[in-house]
Amino acid sequence: MSDYKNILVAVDFSEDNRKVLGRAIHVATQNQAALHLLHVVEYTSSMYAGDIPLPEDLNLDQDLAEQAADKLKELAGSLGVGDVDQRVEIGIPKREVIRCAAECNADLIVIGSHGRHGLQLLLGSTANGVLHQAPCDVLAVRVGG
Amino acid sequence: MSDYKNILVAVDFSEDNRKVLGRAIHVATQNQAALHLLHVVEYTSSMYAGDIPLPEDLNLDQDLAEQAADKLKELAGSLGVGDVDQRVEIGIPKREVIRCAAECNADLIVIGSHGRHGLQLLLGSTANGVLHQAPCDVLAVRVGG
Repeated sequence: MSDYKNILVAVDFSEDNRKVLGRAIHVATQNQAALHLLHVVEYTSSMYAGDIPLPEDLNLDQDLAEQAADKLKELAGSLGVGDVDQRVEIGIPKREVIRCAAECNADLIVIGSHGRHGLQLLLGSTANGVLHQAPCDVLAVRVGG
Repeated sequence: MSDYKNILVAVDFSEDNRKVLGRAIHVATQNQAALHLLHVVEYTSSMYAGDIPLPEDLNLDQDLAEQAADKLKELAGSLGVGDVDQRVEIGIPKREVIRCAAECNADLIVIGSHGRHGLQLLLGSTANGVLHQAPCDVLAVRVGG
Protein backbone atom coordinates (compact mmCIF):
# COMPACT_ATOMS: atom_id res chain seq x y z
CA MET A 1 0.00 0.00 0.00
CA SER A 2 1.66 3.20 -1.17
CA ASP A 3 1.62 6.63 0.48
CA TYR A 4 -0.76 9.34 -0.68
CA LYS A 5 0.95 11.70 -3.13
CA ASN A 6 -1.51 14.56 -3.63
CA ILE A 7 -3.85 15.69 -0.89
CA LEU A 8 -6.61 18.20 -1.55
CA VAL A 9 -8.08 19.89 1.52
CA ALA A 10 -11.34 21.81 1.35
CA VAL A 11 -11.23 24.86 3.61
CA ASP A 12 -14.47 26.63 4.47
CA PHE A 13 -13.31 29.29 6.99
CA SER A 14 -15.60 27.91 9.71
CA GLU A 15 -14.33 28.04 13.27
CA ASP A 16 -13.19 24.41 12.97
CA ASN A 17 -11.02 25.12 10.00
CA ARG A 18 -7.72 24.89 11.77
CA LYS A 19 -8.59 21.35 12.90
CA VAL A 20 -9.33 20.16 9.36
CA LEU A 21 -6.31 21.88 7.86
CA GLY A 22 -4.11 20.75 10.76
CA ARG A 23 -5.10 17.12 10.15
CA ALA A 24 -4.45 17.51 6.41
CA ILE A 25 -0.99 18.94 7.09
CA HIS A 26 -0.26 16.06 9.49
CA VAL A 27 -1.33 13.43 6.93
CA ALA A 28 0.61 15.20 4.16
CA THR A 29 3.74 15.18 6.31
CA GLN A 30 3.33 11.49 7.16
CA ASN A 31 2.94 10.68 3.47
CA GLN A 32 5.42 13.25 2.12
CA ALA A 33 2.55 14.34 -0.10
CA ALA A 34 1.93 17.60 -1.93
CA LEU A 35 -0.83 19.64 -0.30
CA HIS A 36 -3.44 21.61 -2.25
CA LEU A 37 -5.75 24.03 -0.45
CA LEU A 38 -9.14 24.85 -1.90
CA HIS A 39 -11.81 27.28 -0.81
CA VAL A 40 -15.06 27.40 -2.74
CA VAL A 41 -17.07 30.62 -2.79
CA GLU A 42 -20.64 29.41 -3.08
CA TYR A 43 -22.28 30.67 -6.23
CA THR A 44 -24.92 33.29 -5.44
CA SER A 45 -27.67 33.46 -8.00
CA SER A 46 -29.38 36.81 -8.57
CA MET A 47 -32.08 36.59 -5.95
CA TYR A 48 -32.30 40.36 -5.42
CA ALA A 49 -35.80 41.51 -6.27
CA GLY A 50 -35.90 44.99 -4.72
CA ASP A 51 -36.67 48.27 -6.42
CA ILE A 52 -33.27 49.87 -6.09
CA PRO A 53 -31.21 49.18 -9.20
CA LEU A 54 -27.97 47.33 -8.48
CA PRO A 55 -24.78 48.93 -9.82
CA GLU A 56 -23.90 47.42 -13.16
CA ASP A 57 -20.38 46.61 -12.15
CA LEU A 58 -21.52 44.66 -9.08
CA ASN A 59 -19.48 41.52 -8.98
CA LEU A 60 -20.08 40.01 -5.60
CA ASP A 61 -18.72 36.53 -6.33
CA GLN A 62 -15.48 37.95 -7.68
CA ASP A 63 -15.07 40.30 -4.71
CA LEU A 64 -15.71 37.43 -2.31
CA ALA A 65 -13.23 35.27 -4.17
CA GLU A 66 -10.52 37.92 -3.82
CA GLN A 67 -11.20 38.29 -0.11
CA ALA A 68 -11.17 34.52 0.27
CA ALA A 69 -7.81 34.27 -1.46
CA ASP A 70 -6.32 36.70 1.07
CA LYS A 71 -7.93 34.84 3.96
CA LEU A 72 -6.68 31.48 2.68
CA LYS A 73 -3.17 32.87 2.29
CA GLU A 74 -3.23 34.19 5.84
CA LEU A 75 -4.56 30.92 7.28
CA ALA A 76 -2.02 28.83 5.38
CA GLY A 77 0.80 31.12 6.49
CA SER A 78 -0.26 30.92 10.13
CA LEU A 79 -0.09 27.11 9.94
CA GLY A 80 3.31 27.08 8.26
CA VAL A 81 2.11 26.03 4.80
CA GLY A 82 2.03 29.42 3.11
CA ASP A 83 3.95 28.06 0.13
CA VAL A 84 1.59 25.27 -0.96
CA ASP A 85 -0.84 25.34 -3.87
CA GLN A 86 -3.85 27.56 -3.01
CA ARG A 87 -7.03 27.74 -5.06
CA VAL A 88 -10.23 29.72 -4.75
CA GLU A 89 -13.11 28.69 -6.99
CA ILE A 90 -16.65 30.02 -7.40
CA GLY A 91 -19.38 27.41 -7.66
CA ILE A 92 -21.12 24.56 -5.89
CA PRO A 93 -18.76 23.29 -3.18
CA LYS A 94 -19.03 19.54 -3.78
CA ARG A 95 -18.73 19.94 -7.56
CA GLU A 96 -15.68 22.19 -7.29
CA VAL A 97 -14.03 19.85 -4.78
CA ILE A 98 -14.51 16.91 -7.15
CA ARG A 99 -13.30 18.93 -10.16
CA CYS A 100 -10.21 20.20 -8.34
CA ALA A 101 -9.43 16.70 -7.05
CA ALA A 102 -9.24 15.51 -10.66
CA GLU A 103 -7.16 18.55 -11.67
CA CYS A 104 -4.65 17.98 -8.85
CA ASN A 105 -4.54 14.21 -9.36
CA ALA A 106 -5.58 14.00 -5.71
CA ASP A 107 -5.52 10.54 -4.18
CA LEU A 108 -6.98 11.87 -0.92
CA ILE A 109 -9.52 14.59 -0.20
CA VAL A 110 -9.64 15.95 3.36
CA ILE A 111 -12.87 17.65 4.35
CA GLY A 112 -14.64 18.69 7.55
CA SER A 113 -17.73 16.76 8.53
CA HIS A 114 -20.33 18.24 10.84
CA GLY A 115 -22.44 15.11 11.08
CA ARG A 116 -26.12 14.93 10.51
CA HIS A 117 -28.15 17.86 11.64
CA GLY A 118 -31.13 19.87 10.55
CA LEU A 119 -31.50 20.89 6.96
CA GLN A 120 -28.23 19.35 5.87
CA LEU A 121 -29.85 15.97 6.38
CA LEU A 122 -32.33 16.79 3.64
CA LEU A 123 -30.12 18.83 1.38
CA GLY A 124 -27.11 16.59 1.59
CA SER A 125 -23.95 17.98 3.11
CA THR A 126 -20.84 18.81 1.14
CA ALA A 127 -18.92 15.98 2.84
CA ASN A 128 -21.68 13.59 1.83
CA GLY A 129 -21.70 14.73 -1.79
CA VAL A 130 -17.94 14.52 -1.98
CA LEU A 131 -17.95 11.03 -0.48
CA HIS A 132 -20.35 9.78 -3.14
CA GLN A 133 -18.65 11.30 -6.14
CA ALA A 134 -14.99 11.40 -5.22
CA PRO A 135 -12.60 9.63 -7.58
CA CYS A 136 -10.32 8.88 -4.62
CA ASP A 137 -10.21 8.29 -0.87
CA VAL A 138 -11.91 10.81 1.42
CA LEU A 139 -10.90 11.64 4.98
CA ALA A 140 -13.80 13.27 6.80
CA VAL A 141 -12.48 15.12 9.84
CA ARG A 142 -15.06 15.34 12.59
CA VAL A 143 -15.72 18.90 13.67
CA GLY A 144 -18.37 20.64 15.73
CA GLY A 145 -21.12 18.93 17.70
CA MET B 1 -2.06 17.56 15.59
CA SER B 2 -1.55 14.18 17.24
CA ASP B 3 -1.42 10.75 15.62
CA TYR B 4 -4.45 8.47 15.58
CA LYS B 5 -4.31 5.97 18.44
CA ASN B 6 -7.16 3.52 17.76
CA ILE B 7 -8.26 2.67 14.26
CA LEU B 8 -11.40 0.63 13.60
CA VAL B 9 -11.67 -0.91 10.15
CA ALA B 10 -14.94 -2.32 8.86
CA VAL B 11 -14.35 -5.43 6.75
CA ASP B 12 -17.17 -6.71 4.55
CA PHE B 13 -15.48 -9.58 2.65
CA SER B 14 -16.15 -8.00 -0.72
CA GLU B 15 -13.53 -8.43 -3.40
CA ASP B 16 -12.09 -5.01 -2.55
CA ASN B 17 -11.52 -5.92 1.03
CA ARG B 18 -7.78 -6.24 0.83
CA LYS B 19 -7.55 -2.66 -0.44
CA VAL B 20 -9.52 -1.26 2.50
CA LEU B 21 -7.71 -3.37 5.07
CA GLY B 22 -4.35 -2.67 3.40
CA ARG B 23 -4.95 1.07 3.66
CA ALA B 24 -6.01 0.72 7.31
CA ILE B 25 -2.83 -1.23 8.10
CA HIS B 26 -0.73 1.42 6.34
CA VAL B 27 -2.36 4.26 8.29
CA ALA B 28 -2.08 2.31 11.56
CA THR B 29 1.64 1.78 10.93
CA GLN B 30 2.20 5.48 10.12
CA ASN B 31 0.41 6.45 13.32
CA GLN B 32 1.66 3.58 15.49
CA ALA B 33 -2.01 3.01 16.27
CA ALA B 34 -3.82 -0.05 17.55
CA LEU B 35 -5.91 -1.70 14.85
CA HIS B 36 -9.36 -3.19 15.46
CA LEU B 37 -11.05 -5.30 12.76
CA LEU B 38 -14.81 -5.55 12.62
CA HIS B 39 -17.11 -7.59 10.43
CA VAL B 40 -20.84 -7.15 10.82
CA VAL B 41 -23.15 -10.03 9.90
CA GLU B 42 -26.30 -8.29 8.71
CA TYR B 43 -29.26 -9.20 10.83
CA THR B 44 -31.67 -11.43 8.93
CA SER B 45 -35.25 -11.15 10.13
CA SER B 46 -37.47 -14.22 9.91
CA MET B 47 -38.85 -13.77 6.44
CA TYR B 48 -39.43 -17.46 5.82
CA ALA B 49 -43.13 -18.05 5.21
CA GLY B 50 -43.16 -21.52 3.66
CA ASP B 51 -45.01 -24.61 4.84
CA ILE B 52 -42.02 -26.68 5.82
CA PRO B 53 -41.28 -26.19 9.52
CA LEU B 54 -37.79 -24.86 10.16
CA PRO B 55 -35.68 -26.84 12.60
CA GLU B 56 -36.03 -25.36 16.07
CA ASP B 57 -32.30 -25.09 16.57
CA LEU B 58 -31.85 -23.09 13.35
CA ASN B 59 -29.53 -20.26 14.16
CA LEU B 60 -28.44 -18.79 10.89
CA ASP B 61 -27.02 -15.53 12.21
CA GLN B 62 -24.90 -17.34 14.75
CA ASP B 63 -23.63 -19.84 12.16
CA LEU B 64 -22.76 -16.99 9.81
CA ALA B 65 -21.00 -15.15 12.62
CA GLU B 66 -18.84 -18.18 13.36
CA GLN B 67 -17.94 -18.59 9.69
CA ALA B 68 -17.18 -14.87 9.48
CA ALA B 69 -14.85 -15.06 12.48
CA ASP B 70 -12.84 -17.79 10.73
CA LYS B 71 -12.77 -15.79 7.49
CA LEU B 72 -11.68 -12.62 9.28
CA LYS B 73 -8.91 -14.49 11.09
CA GLU B 74 -7.68 -15.93 7.78
CA LEU B 75 -7.77 -12.55 6.02
CA ALA B 76 -5.98 -10.80 8.89
CA GLY B 77 -3.33 -13.52 8.99
CA SER B 78 -2.72 -13.28 5.24
CA LEU B 79 -2.08 -9.54 5.61
CA GLY B 80 0.25 -9.96 8.58
CA VAL B 81 -2.11 -8.63 11.25
CA GLY B 82 -3.39 -11.91 12.63
CA ASP B 83 -2.74 -10.75 16.19
CA VAL B 84 -4.88 -7.60 16.27
CA ASP B 85 -8.30 -7.22 17.90
CA GLN B 86 -10.95 -8.97 15.77
CA ARG B 87 -14.70 -8.62 16.29
CA VAL B 88 -17.72 -10.10 14.59
CA GLU B 89 -21.09 -8.57 15.44
CA ILE B 90 -24.62 -9.35 14.28
CA GLY B 91 -26.78 -6.35 13.46
CA ILE B 92 -27.16 -3.34 11.19
CA PRO B 93 -23.71 -2.51 9.78
CA LYS B 94 -23.64 1.25 10.33
CA ARG B 95 -25.03 0.93 13.86
CA GLU B 96 -22.52 -1.75 14.83
CA VAL B 97 -19.63 0.23 13.35
CA ILE B 98 -20.62 3.28 15.40
CA ARG B 99 -21.11 1.21 18.55
CA CYS B 100 -17.77 -0.57 18.17
CA ALA B 101 -16.01 2.72 17.44
CA ALA B 102 -17.17 3.98 20.83
CA GLU B 103 -16.20 0.71 22.53
CA CYS B 104 -12.68 0.80 21.05
CA ASN B 105 -12.23 4.53 21.69
CA ALA B 106 -11.60 4.76 17.95
CA ASP B 107 -10.35 8.11 16.70
CA LEU B 108 -10.50 6.92 13.10
CA ILE B 109 -12.89 4.59 11.28
CA VAL B 110 -11.69 3.15 7.95
CA ILE B 111 -14.42 1.92 5.63
CA GLY B 112 -14.82 1.04 1.96
CA SER B 113 -16.86 3.39 -0.17
CA HIS B 114 -18.44 2.24 -3.42
CA GLY B 115 -19.75 5.65 -4.43
CA ARG B 116 -23.28 6.37 -5.45
CA HIS B 117 -25.06 3.77 -7.47
CA GLY B 118 -28.48 2.20 -7.79
CA LEU B 119 -30.46 1.35 -4.72
CA GLN B 120 -27.76 2.46 -2.31
CA LEU B 121 -28.51 6.03 -3.35
CA LEU B 122 -32.00 5.66 -1.95
CA LEU B 123 -31.27 3.42 0.98
CA GLY B 124 -28.15 5.20 2.13
CA SER B 125 -24.88 3.31 2.06
CA THR B 126 -23.07 2.09 5.13
CA ALA B 127 -20.22 4.55 4.50
CA ASN B 128 -22.74 7.35 4.34
CA GLY B 129 -24.48 6.35 7.56
CA VAL B 130 -21.15 5.98 9.33
CA LEU B 131 -20.00 9.39 8.10
CA HIS B 132 -23.08 11.07 9.53
CA GLN B 133 -23.05 9.40 12.92
CA ALA B 134 -19.41 8.73 13.64
CA PRO B 135 -18.00 10.19 16.84
CA CYS B 136 -14.59 10.49 15.14
CA ASP B 137 -12.82 10.94 11.81
CA VAL B 138 -13.76 8.62 8.93
CA LEU B 139 -11.48 7.54 6.10
CA ALA B 140 -13.55 6.30 3.16
CA VAL B 141 -11.37 4.17 0.91
CA ARG B 142 -12.55 4.26 -2.67
CA VAL B 143 -13.21 0.80 -4.06
CA GLY B 144 -14.97 -0.58 -7.10
CA GLY B 145 -16.23 1.44 -10.05
